[in-house]
Amino acid sequence: MKLKKNERIDDLEFEDLKIIQNIDGFCFGIDSVLISDFAKNIRKNSVVVDLGTGTGIISILLSKKTLAKKIYGVEIQKEVCEMAKRSVLLNNLQDKIEIINEDIKEISEKLGIQMCDAVVTNPPYKKYGTGLLNEKESRIISRHEKECTLEDVIKQSFKILKDKGSFYMVHRPDRLVDIIFLMRKYKIEPKELRIVYSNMTSKAVLILIKGIKNAGEELKLINPLYIYNEDGTYTDEILRIYNKKV
Amino acid sequence: MKLKKNERIDDLEFEDLKIIQNIDGFCFGIDSVLISDFAKNIRKNSVVVDLGTGTGIISILLSKKTLAKKIYGVEIQKEVCEMAKRSVLLNNLQDKIEIINEDIKEISEKLGIQMCDAVVTNPPYKKYGTGLLNEKESRIISRHEKECTLEDVIKQSFKILKDKGSFYMVHRPDRLVDIIFLMRKYKIEPKELRIVYSNMTSKAVLILIKGIKNAGEELKLINPLYIYNEDGTYTDEILRIYNKKV
Repeated sequence: MKLKKNERIDDLEFEDLKIIQNIDGFCFGIDSVLISDFAKNIRKNSVVVDLGTGTGIISILLSKKTLAKKIYGVEIQKEVCEMAKRSVLLNNLQDKIEIINEDIKEISEKLGIQMCDAVVTNPPYKKYGTGLLNEKESRIISRHEKECTLEDVIKQSFKILKDKGSFYMVHRPDRLVDIIFLMRKYKIEPKELRIVYSNMTSKAVLILIKGIKNAGEELKLINPLYIYNEDGTYTDEILRIYNKKV
Repeated sequence: MKLKKNERIDDLEFEDLKIIQNIDGFCFGIDSVLISDFAKNIRKNSVVVDLGTGTGIISILLSKKTLAKKIYGVEIQKEVCEMAKRSVLLNNLQDKIEIINEDIKEISEKLGIQMCDAVVTNPPYKKYGTGLLNEKESRIISRHEKECTLEDVIKQSFKILKDKGSFYMVHRPDRLVDIIFLMRKYKIEPKELRIVYSNMTSKAVLILIKGIKNAGEELKLINPLYIYNEDGTYTDEILRIYNKKV
């Protein structure tokens, strides 16, 4: 596999999976790893859509963490998309994963309505116009709601999901109110919420949320997920998720 | 202080406070103690309304945990209300606390609009018609949304709160979606959320939420609160809240 300038191959340390990343662009983080694990109970033979796949990390991990039949990774940035396609080939997953260069805002027109059993997404976290924007264009698109907003992601997810289909998202705690408000607005009822804390005394750093299209109202707030022990080492659960020996 | 049949006086073990409870009715629990502590930063000289005060527990604790000027405890049940009034007298807090026998649904008409700086509430948790209803009438009113719904509580809170006034509520995790949706609907923006877990591996048991009327959008999901240590003893924070030596 030939790499372009500024690209490198990283080992995902999970079932021999590898990924190509551009070191000047947005590299995958723990959030993508956690959402792939949170979504691991996606049913056998499901059709899954990964909205805003970036490097392809979530689609690639889901191909081994679940028994999904087909995974579509959607990415608006042409170059990033092309790199994700090469990562799929590198792992020989081209029968299972299709990376498509489309705009999330138009995805229901491209893929069709009610075409999937599950959506998994790690969307841009920040409202566009907040925080530092003196970054490379591709990083801005990956991290800020420049090309699509949280509302676009949830609205399109509702459209492409089958009735009672599942929606999984990782996001920041400061957007929890927006997330819950929009999910209910677009009839993807929040059913499971897991808060990720850096350690047992810190504030929350991430949230993992599962919703079901057209489901009844009742949320489970499951046990917290800690990244670090008190002594600064990774917790057993994080090691398990990363497939390290505990 | 003369007690009625089935009543007893319990020591709140906080600044010599005591409370009268009816052992056949709804007795206060850890939720009331936690919300009183969560609301302890209510500003000096505030006017506070405790919606659905029951035994008066929250109003009585807030009188010592905060420097509030005046606290109104609102309770629809006449007998419970009369008992709460005796608890106020028992603690010699009649200058600070006024227990009023009113319906939460009509409270803005009775007390006036924009009359308070803070609302603190431990409302009925369960949707009426769910769960076991073979309980005493007074327990049903305290625990189920028979006399007022979550929407009534939030709607009335908006009306009685001054601009930028604070709203503090303890509730169950399974209603978090309803709570967040309704708070935003009635312009009491959720600003702080604290999840209470039984211990470090359990699912959540309670949520403590603070909102500000007409505030900007940004939630802080602060550090979790654990009730028990791994060995089943109370955590240091719970002991501090109960004013025990740590």
